Amino acid sequence: MYLRIDKLQFELPQPKERDPNAAATVQELMGGRFGEMSTLMNYTMQSFNFRGKKPLKPYYDLVANIAAEELGHIELVAATINALLAGPDPKDQEVAADPTSTPFDFAKDARNAQNFIAGGPGAMVQDSRNIPWTGDNVFSSGNLVLDMLHNFFLESGARQQKLRVYETVSDPVSKALTGYLLVRGGVHQVAYAKALETLTGANITKMMPVPNIDTAKIPESKRLMDQGIHLKMYRFSPSDYTDMGGIWKGPHPDDGQEVYVTDELPNGGEAVDGGHDSAAFAPEYEMEELMEIAKKLKINI
Amino acid sequence: MYLRIDKLQFELPQPKERDPNAAATVQELMGGRFGEMSTLMNYTMQSFNFRGKKPLKPYYDLVANIAAEELGHIELVAATINALLAGPDPKDQEVAADPTSTPFDFAKDARNAQNFIAGGPGAMVQDSRNIPWTGDNVFSSGNLVLDMLHNFFLESGARQQKLRVYETVSDPVSKALTGYLLVRGGVHQVAYAKALETLTGANITKMMPVPNIDTAKIPESKRLMDQGIHLKMYRFSPSDYTDMGGIWKGPHPDDGQEVYVTDELPNGGEAVDGGHDSAAFAPEYEMEELMEIAKKLKINI
Amino acid sequence: MYLRIDKLQFELPQPKERDPNAAATVQELMGGRFGEMSTLMNYTMQSFNFRGKKPLKPYYDLVANIAAEELGHIELVAATINALLAGPDPKDQEVAADPTSTPFDFAKDARNAQNFIAGGPGAMVQDSRNIPWTGDNVFSSGNLVLDMLHNFFLESGARQQKLRVYETVSDPVSKALTGYLLVRGGVHQVAYAKALETLTGANITKMMPVPNIDTAKIPESKRLMDQGIHLKMYRFSPSDYTDMGGIWKGPHPDDGQEVYVTDELPNGGEAVDGGHDSAAFAPEYEMEELMEIAKKLKINI
Amino acid sequence: MYLRIDKLQFELPQPKERDPNAAATVQELMGGRFGEMSTLMNYTMQSFNFRGKKPLKPYYDLVANIAAEELGHIELVAATINALLAGPDPKDQEVAADPTSTPFDFAKDARNAQNFIAGGPGAMVQDSRNIPWTGDNVFSSGNLVLDMLHNFFLESGARQQKLRVYETVSDPVSKALTGYLLVRGGVHQVAYAKALETLTGANITKMMPVPNIDTAKIPESKRLMDQGIHLKMYRFSPSDYTDMGGIWKGPHPDDGQEVYVTDELPNGGEAVDGGHDSAAFAPEYEMEELMEIAKKLKINI
Amino acid sequence: MYLRIDKLQFELPQPKERDPNAAATVQELMGGRFGEMSTLMNYTMQSFNFRGKKPLKPYYDLVANIAAEELGHIELVAATINALLAGPDPKDQEVAADPTSTPFDFAKDARNAQNFIAGGPGAMVQDSRNIPWTGDNVFSSGNLVLDMLHNFFLESGARQQKLRVYETVSDPVSKALTGYLLVRGGVHQVAYAKALETLTGANITKMMPVPNIDTAKIPESKRLMDQGIHLKMYRFSPSDYTDMGGIWKGPHPDDGQEVYVTDELPNGGEAVDGGHDSAAFAPEYEMEELMEIAKKLKINI
Amino acid sequence: MYLRIDKLQFELPQPKERDPNAAATVQELMGGRFGEMSTLMNYTMQSFNFRGKKPLKPYYDLVANIAAEELGHIELVAATINALLAGPDPKDQEVAADPTSTPFDFAKDARNAQNFIAGGPGAMVQDSRNIPWTGDNVFSSGNLVLDMLHNFFLESGARQQKLRVYETVSDPVSKALTGYLLVRGGVHQVAYAKALETLTGANITKMMPVPNIDTAKIPESKRLMDQGIHLKMYRFSPSDYTDMGGIWKGPHPDDGQEVYVTDELPNGGEAVDGGHDSAAFAPEYEMEELMEIAKKLKINI
Repeated sequence: MYLRIDKLQFELPQPKERDPNAAATVQELMGGRFGEMSTLMNYTMQSFNFRGKKPLKPYYDLVANIAAEELGHIELVAATINALLAGPDPKDQEVAADPTSTPFDFAKDARNAQNFIAGGPGAMVQDSRNIPWTGDNVFSSGNLVLDMLHNFFLESGARQQKLRVYETVSDPVSKALTGYLLVRGGVHQVAYAKALETLTGANITKMMPVPNIDTAKIPESKRLMDQGIHLKMYRFSPSDYTDMGGIWKGPHPDDGQEVYVTDELPNGGEAVDGGHDSAAFAPEYEMEELMEIAKKLKINI
Repeated sequence: MYLRIDKLQFELPQPKERDPNAAATVQELMGGRFGEMSTLMNYTMQSFNFRGKKPLKPYYDLVANIAAEELGHIELVAATINALLAGPDPKDQEVAADPTSTPFDFAKDARNAQNFIAGGPGAMVQDSRNIPWTGDNVFSSGNLVLDMLHNFFLESGARQQKLRVYETVSDPVSKALTGYLLVRGGVHQVAYAKALETLTGANITKMMPVPNIDTAKIPESKRLMDQGIHLKMYRFSPSDYTDMGGIWKGPHPDDGQEVYVTDELPNGGEAVDGGHDSAAFAPEYEMEELMEIAKKLKINI
Repeated sequence: MYLRIDKLQFELPQPKERDPNAAATVQELMGGRFGEMSTLMNYTMQSFNFRGKKPLKPYYDLVANIAAEELGHIELVAATINALLAGPDPKDQEVAADPTSTPFDFAKDARNAQNFIAGGPGAMVQDSRNIPWTGDNVFSSGNLVLDMLHNFFLESGARQQKLRVYETVSDPVSKALTGYLLVRGGVHQVAYAKALETLTGANITKMMPVPNIDTAKIPESKRLMDQGIHLKMYRFSPSDYTDMGGIWKGPHPDDGQEVYVTDELPNGGEAVDGGHDSAAFAPEYEMEELMEIAKKLKINI
Repeated sequence: MYLRIDKLQFELPQPKERDPNAAATVQELMGGRFGEMSTLMNYTMQSFNFRGKKPLKPYYDLVANIAAEELGHIELVAATINALLAGPDPKDQEVAADPTSTPFDFAKDARNAQNFIAGGPGAMVQDSRNIPWTGDNVFSSGNLVLDMLHNFFLESGARQQKLRVYETVSDPVSKALTGYLLVRGGVHQVAYAKALETLTGANITKMMPVPNIDTAKIPESKRLMDQGIHLKMYRFSPSDYTDMGGIWKGPHPDDGQEVYVTDELPNGGEAVDGGHDSAAFAPEYEMEELMEIAKKLKINI
Repeated sequence: MYLRIDKLQFELPQPKERDPNAAATVQELMGGRFGEMSTLMNYTMQSFNFRGKKPLKPYYDLVANIAAEELGHIELVAATINALLAGPDPKDQEVAADPTSTPFDFAKDARNAQNFIAGGPGAMVQDSRNIPWTGDNVFSSGNLVLDMLHNFFLESGARQQKLRVYETVSDPVSKALTGYLLVRGGVHQVAYAKALETLTGANITKMMPVPNIDTAKIPESKRLMDQGIHLKMYRFSPSDYTDMGGIWKGPHPDDGQEVYVTDELPNGGEAVDGGHDSAAFAPEYEMEELMEIAKKLKINI
Repeated sequence: MYLRIDKLQFELPQPKERDPNAAATVQELMGGRFGEMSTLMNYTMQSFNFRGKKPLKPYYDLVANIAAEELGHIELVAATINALLAGPDPKDQEVAADPTSTPFDFAKDARNAQNFIAGGPGAMVQDSRNIPWTGDNVFSSGNLVLDMLHNFFLESGARQQKLRVYETVSDPVSKALTGYLLVRGGVHQVAYAKALETLTGANITKMMPVPNIDTAKIPESKRLMDQGIHLKMYRFSPSDYTDMGGIWKGPHPDDGQEVYVTDELPNGGEAVDGGHDSAAFAPEYEMEELMEIAKKLKINI
């Protein structure tokens, strides 16, 4: 069972400009083989299918809890895509558009016109090729060592995609997103390495960092590491997953600091609201009509 | 941001027998076009892409909160599939299997051998044809009326699939699952109908029930309706989504009782643990080895 | 622009029994790479994309007209699948089913449970693996010789699939369907061979029959050939496609008889009506309710 | 069974320029989830699978007849894509191209190079992402209320995609196409709303227009509405589907005028012929050679 | 550039019976995510995309050479599927089948009727769900450590699938195939572990065996290990890939014996010839006709 | 069983510039329906599934041997894509890139950002739409005439795609690739035509060339034809496939010269090495580190 809090895990900055192709690129982090839908659904299904929850509780807790964090990651990626599709001043799109003036003209040459035609504009469950995410991206074998090995590989591949997206899109909102995900994905990568080490005795962390670049070289990540965010395993539960500390302990391979489980949650941030986009008929009604509806439902805005 | 609680929303009974084809059928409720992955991801993406969160807060709250409930639904479907794959006495599978005795022989003629070869055995993100769920099942148009209309249609289609799965699989665990989902999916179906009514003035609830059978005719649902579970919108949040009551109010179209939002959570239940399946090398280690690992990680079992 | 006549091109016999796996097999002729959706959409798109309609009018007419006939073929295949899903006495399914008695129990072990869960029961746009037909099955190159060569290959492959489905399903409705499609598909195969011959001078018909079995060896086909149905190119238009005779002339490679274009249409037949299936909630209402609706809409039944 | 007439349902204007990305965008109306392949195949399969044709004849007639109209819609979309790929003066492409001069150079940076490499150039059964249409876009549940609800949703979603394509592509041929489809799709949207109203008593038309913009605001649509084209249900049959008037009657929700069934067909228009495209080897032969072939087949051009 | 030798890498025994569902299961090893098409194409693409071939020659040689071995593995899997489809005495199928006797009747209830309708009968590029293999199964990142980590994971996952197929299909030809692939796939698994160790210093081999069962417990594998086949890296080249020994050296983690590169090739074996299958029209001609063709082409049989 | 030689079949020139969209276009020849993956896997599976290898040995030898040549073709296409992604001076990419400078900025607007994010940069098993190649592109029917007819069609379609790619990408490396493939694919096209002629007596070669342009009009092909490369069937085997000469004999339809089987192999060439791409972390290590690794493995560079 899950609860939801109406906050992002991390405060994203404003985008610099409306940039459909940047949004299309960031989609790789949503629906790509190594995107957040994949990490989310892999760990979620592994936790659903977990065998031996009692004797293996620290492993179960770890996978189940990281799965919960990943829900916040698809949320962050969607917020970034929405920001890049709406631009820094979405109010511009509120002005009643004349459909005959072809207000989506720019989308014709964009890499994914469907972001506008189908999406709202909005984030879609697709990768940067505009191909939908598929359940075949999930690996849940029932075998714990294999699942942990897979997860370590998945996070390593994901780290590479994040770095490369970081290098492809210059907008600050994308840089901030990838900077944050590198730090938190790094936590998961190390966690699965440590899980493998406790299970097999092999010294997997020695392999890191993969790819071979210190996360601290990314300024948007460095800022967060200075706050120790790479050391914390947030416990995303009011009551459960209390035994992760059996695995999440010892030094972080990056800087040797001791990692730890914490009951506090990330400070978080507000998701940008794309607001009324007249050309898209989204969310259907003009601003005054919206006020009218709000009044009818007795909401104070 | 999301939190997770280590409980199912609903206590499932024991399965009557190990039944791979029943499990393969229930997969439709996981990865089918109208399965729980679809309801989950549709509402989740709509909440991420929502425009006008302030003036339209009751609608935003409704969609975002139902999305949170759906997370518990994929969990329940997975638990049912796992139960049908493990059978009532999973301890049978603990006995060290001799691989040369072809212990998965029965899977050769099952509808989805991959449930065993790839899955663990375990639930997969696939439908009853064994075809993976795809992101193209998500509709998130940015237009609120269209999104609500879609959601009402989606829940109506889902109600039909649940009824038909109920009629296809006789195992009590499947009957209980579909009985529960009919009640809770019914809540969502009514909620989207009411949302459409407040937005457009059209009297959508008059169309119900679709399909034209009272939920109360399903004994496994009736039991829950007698407890009033069809009237409650659980607020799956410690702090947010407090304005759903602007929409979720008035009579339930089934029996005219007043519907209401509640802060309590479902009582919930325990997920069955498939335990050690020797033939599947799942979770890799034999029971004594597991105890050893647990000791090393200092867990009291 | 198209017109529609409420008749099948061919009268199908009653099925011998309700046989879901037979229906699932016949789906290959609907949604397989060589199924009728493929022939339909290949010729339809080629006719839409045709270049040089004036100088090449006989070729355009031929492709456009055969495309129109193929519409009747997907209709026939669907009718056969529906017959196999409903069985010889669909009235049995009218009796109000008790959902708690698991009336679709038999579907659990069928090859495609989705035929019942999603389909109605009914025909689906899928192949015998339950995989949906895809637009990538269409070849429309703009190059007339290549398109004709493709079409000749497509019909040859389709002839093989029909023969093999004939050999897999023994039900008379399936035998009749495949017998009919072998004769009419044979007309198309010969037509594309003749088109290629006129365009290139190569004697393609010498290759036939492919596969190497006389259609007349299939009794259900022989009956139709005795009526000369293998010689006729029906002109499926009230006014157009009058120049096919430039190509569709000369001897039929099977028996040397002269082939010809005709303005008459096939005698045709009635599609079986699955009627009310109570377990499927299809078409939702019980028979008396249907009568009520009919009365309201002032129809005499 | 179907007949075909060698005319478009509507006369399309000349394109302003050769515009591959505009063509790629219009593909959404061909092969997208809400494109014309989807409306065509949904209604076609529902008519094939229809249960209770006698008592429910007005509904059967409506679905079957609209399916016939949709055939003309995929034809119109294909014609528009072909026009945008060929440009206003396709004769330019007749000049013998020197392959070494890289005559398709511009296609390298186009959104869908395959339109040229595979397509001829020509229309393809793909959406605006270049992803093929799939049979999983078809919903045919056997349950009439659900099917009608689906169809109303499908037409509403389709209306939105058409409006957004209208706003994305400025070429007059695209504007004319979308203007026409908005009017005729609007007829289908209203028809399914009325069908639902007669079946359930819910006042669905009150929801319209969805999206919330009068079709009459689109000049290319307004022109047609002034001719009353939004009021007519063309009967696309020489003999059948005579009972649609049981549903298609009463006021049009847009302007209150009485809607009616008519036996006349649309005036229609001519499809552009892309002609000889030397670079594409389409239709293979140079113009003189074509004349030669025509002569051999005894056609007067 | 590649050469081909008309031999299997390993002599397969006769199948015990014609078993379509066994064949459908073994398809997982052909077209599954962890099947031989995947190992083949992953290593092939990585070798094509390799960067730094000179300084990293041992790694390049290793990947390129293992890719060559994998070609022989898809060949072996295909031979096994063909054997299971043809049965021990394919001559039975030579007898002229009467198509009206429905000679493929048994295929109607088989898990993949398409093996017969489309396949010949024959092996297909599909997995055990009958879903085609896709290029998205290939990981080729340009980053050597990531590629090696992926390959180690891929071989570990493949080992699990092979073990589980071994446990699902009891036919001796399937047991022999999986026994052989476990040994040779084991060589690849160890090789990638050693590659990772030399690159990163982490002691990956300590993790093995994954899954946790000695290959020597499989009698069909044990027989080959007794011949030392688990120690040899065959050099599948007349001239190249001479530097693998830089990595493929040191003890085998299973039994501590020294591994080594060898220039000899496996002894190999003969592929079964399905021969003439009259019902399938395969290979079209009856045996006497074949003799006639052979004579015409001047072959001595 | 297969052997591998570390050489391309043909020496490719340097690319003129780094051109991601050109690379994305050439991907059609890798993973398109008519690309080299398709020719490779069609002939490979047909050879694995071949029936009647003894009486039909010349046909078996032909298909099996051409399949071996196709392995070299996917290698050539990959080399071309890699060349276009790396550009003429890959050393430029060796310079340590500052990730904060967004060094992949140009990829954001490229047609396939995934070539960089996932690929390395490198070739992928995808077509020019970035859609992965699928096993459903394989036709292997068991019926020899049908298989040969398919192969003749496949090579004819492939010839068209190659010509059109030739006309779309002006870079010399692409021109050289397509020039070479036109000549060698032409050999296969003629071979399958001759195979069909010997089997059926129909004079298929009369249809050629399809499309109707002499290969000799392509200068990059002409150069090779002057060396007689269109006449040779290379025997890609140290020992086998010795009976192709039963089919591969007689005049070449292009110029009437006698075709023949040869035991020599193509001269071949070197594949470009993309080298170190710092921005891509490919192959992970900087050049000095690579030297260090090489030393450790005792290689002389």
